[in-house]
Amino acid sequence: MDINLPEVVAEVKVAFERYEKALISNDVAVLDELFWQSAQTIRFGVTENLYGYDEIANFRTNRSAVNLERVLINTIITTYGWDFATVNTEFKRPPSSDKIGRQSQTWMRTNEGWRVVCAHVSVLMNK
Amino acid sequence: MDINLPEVVAEVKVAFERYEKALISNDVAVLDELFWQSAQTIRFGVTENLYGYDEIANFRTNRSAVNLERVLINTIITTYGWDFATVNTEFKRPPSSDKIGRQSQTWMRTNEGWRVVCAHVSVLMNK
Repeated sequence: MDINLPEVVAEVKVAFERYEKALISNDVAVLDELFWQSAQTIRFGVTENLYGYDEIANFRTNRSAVNLERVLINTIITTYGWDFATVNTEFKRPPSSDKIGRQSQTWMRTNEGWRVVCAHVSVLMNK
Repeated sequence: MDINLPEVVAEVKVAFERYEKALISNDVAVLDELFWQSAQTIRFGVTENLYGYDEIANFRTNRSAVNLERVLINTIITTYGWDFATVNTEFKRPPSSDKIGRQSQTWMRTNEGWRVVCAHVSVLMNK
């Protein structure tokens, strides 16, 4: 399998940056758009386990829209062939936080564009 | 893309169950074998962020081998075409724990067999 074909990486980077911008501005329509519309879609958040597109969309609707600003650290996009990618990143939210968050997304190319098929967000704990 | 082709799901299930057995018995050789041998491989654990196969293998070598028993809850395998899969599960470790763990893995078919290309493990926090 071809890893990190430059044109595929570029496509996923555009999708990922669009997601990030929507996240910190609470653009729910774009966040919903970028998740795979499937009962199989999964999002493990810091304080919730969400199964299926509908549970994720409901979470977005009810999420607080304040203090969403964050900075990303060590963002790594890896693509596998033409249709699959993972994006892993660390983050600090708010940027002044001393806690490290981690976000993992698996993306798939669909007829409608790149979509997140599963995501996992958590906070790094002390040993 | 064909989602959940039965023969692909069956293959990934075998690989995942082999991984789980190795995890709770601390079979480091099998755990190492099942991670993709690449500098791109990422594992976000509860208390560590590991980048590249070597950091992950080093972590396995130094991990405590006691109290690894856990029970899985809501294990969901999803396959995408022939060569890609995600496995998400909740777990309790030890099985009597009142804390919920979450484990997300993205698997890729390689010439050597199915391999984990990235993984994320965390503990669900209270709201």
